[in-house]
Amino acid sequence: MKHVTRRQILGPIGIVAGSCVLTSCLSENLVSSPDKDKKSSFPWQYATLEPDITAERTYYDCSKGHCMYGVFAPVVSQLAEKYGESYESFPVDMMRYGVGGTGDSGSLCGALNGSAALIGLFIKTEEEMKQLIGELFLWYEQTELPIYVPGKAILDIEMPKSASNSVLCHVSATTWCKISGYKAFTKPQKECCKRLTADTAKKTVEILNAHFAGKSSAVHKLDEKVEKCKSCHTKDSKMSDSRGTMNCGSCHFSLAKAHP
Amino acid sequence: MKHVTRRQILGPIGIVAGSCVLTSCLSENLVSSPDKDKKSSFPWQYATLEPDITAERTYYDCSKGHCMYGVFAPVVSQLAEKYGESYESFPVDMMRYGVGGTGDSGSLCGALNGSAALIGLFIKTEEEMKQLIGELFLWYEQTELPIYVPGKAILDIEMPKSASNSVLCHVSATTWCKISGYKAFTKPQKECCKRLTADTAKKTVEILNAHFAGKSSAVHKLDEKVEKCKSCHTKDSKMSDSRGTMNCGSCHFSLAKAHP
Repeated sequence: MKHVTRRQILGPIGIVAGSCVLTSCLSENLVSSPDKDKKSSFPWQYATLEPDITAERTYYDCSKGHCMYGVFAPVVSQLAEKYGESYESFPVDMMRYGVGGTGDSGSLCGALNGSAALIGLFIKTEEEMKQLIGELFLWYEQTELPIYVPGKAILDIEMPKSASNSVLCHVSATTWCKISGYKAFTKPQKECCKRLTADTAKKTVEILNAHFAGKSSAVHKLDEKVEKCKSCHTKDSKMSDSRGTMNCGSCHFSLAKAHP
Repeated sequence: MKHVTRRQILGPIGIVAGSCVLTSCLSENLVSSPDKDKKSSFPWQYATLEPDITAERTYYDCSKGHCMYGVFAPVVSQLAEKYGESYESFPVDMMRYGVGGTGDSGSLCGALNGSAALIGLFIKTEEEMKQLIGELFLWYEQTELPIYVPGKAILDIEMPKSASNSVLCHVSATTWCKISGYKAFTKPQKECCKRLTADTAKKTVEILNAHFAGKSSAVHKLDEKVEKCKSCHTKDSKMSDSRGTMNCGSCHFSLAKAHP
């Protein structure tokens, strides 16, 4: 560790008496980030939004900052129109990072990452947050997308649909390429992503609208095969050796042949 | 579409003359989100941070909001101590959503999601943003983690290490469970995640420090096998049927046997 001053170590938290060594005698409360100066109220206030308008804005906003930005920015901008600050100054441009499953890595679909970030911003309890994200992710895995048809298309083509069976950008895009016959990184594949992102923003707003109206939006269930896998591998099960709710078969391709 | 007023459709953007139907005659500029009223400067200003202090804060902050929050909050809070607003009022609690690979789905590791969000907040150009995220993700896949040893451990155990070969929470956690012999969702597995998250925050700050000092931090390279896969499957290649940079073998287990 480089030389650091006590001020650097403690920030605004306070002064530790004596001359103890940082890593051996500071308590958890002293070295974690301060809470008491927090100026941001949380969670931020939501207001019922029109799903179709959100989808439309998302479709075009994808051209400004890709998928994660495309979902996130239109919701925040609509609330900024209603509430003003702090929505107006939220640095929505940061959400460009979700492009191509985060920095082109192909991991979590950026549309879902943006939607989950919105749910994180508006939902207070961890349990409810996970429920809403869970419903959204199951919908995404199981629904043939894209459904959204733009009034004025950026690329006006007949759009093939596919169910991704996965929340991962890599799997979702590759599955659509297989079914459509189009290559990855082509204009049709990018058009597919824009429309699918519009669908995801619409679904997210529907889920949030329902939640704040006191209604449940949970209609999708884990695939039966996934339920079977989880019966041995999830928390408190016989094996209890894995985490997650993603569709197992989208990576464990040959499991049926080799598995007990 | 439900009935909506023109005000709802257009927000502060303006009034469309005539009585055209929304989806057929509004131009792209009219229906995407407005830019001109944007009050947030972008990107946000970074300042050199101490990697070891960041790791320490991250380790303890994981107890407040899990992995994504654990990486994101300490960096923002340290900058808030230096700059004040807008850092003080950033709703860092929203980042709880990255828990367990986003809402417990097991997809992108929440520590990496939080780190990528920070890179998105501080880096302006898309190319540079992708380079920094790329280096971080390769480091995470290829490094035996966790390295971080807390001075005052929340769970004081001898900590086994493993290289995840994947940026996915599900794969990373399962791999560590296999190597360590511990079950998923146990205290040792959660302790591993806290320490690995501290490592990821430290690496992110090192990457950002280097970037803003005009230095390159790119030292990790794609695995040779992945390079081989990509030679046929990536952009502008023979097949050009997939997207992403994730380690192929972490899901395509039996590729060596069946592949040409």
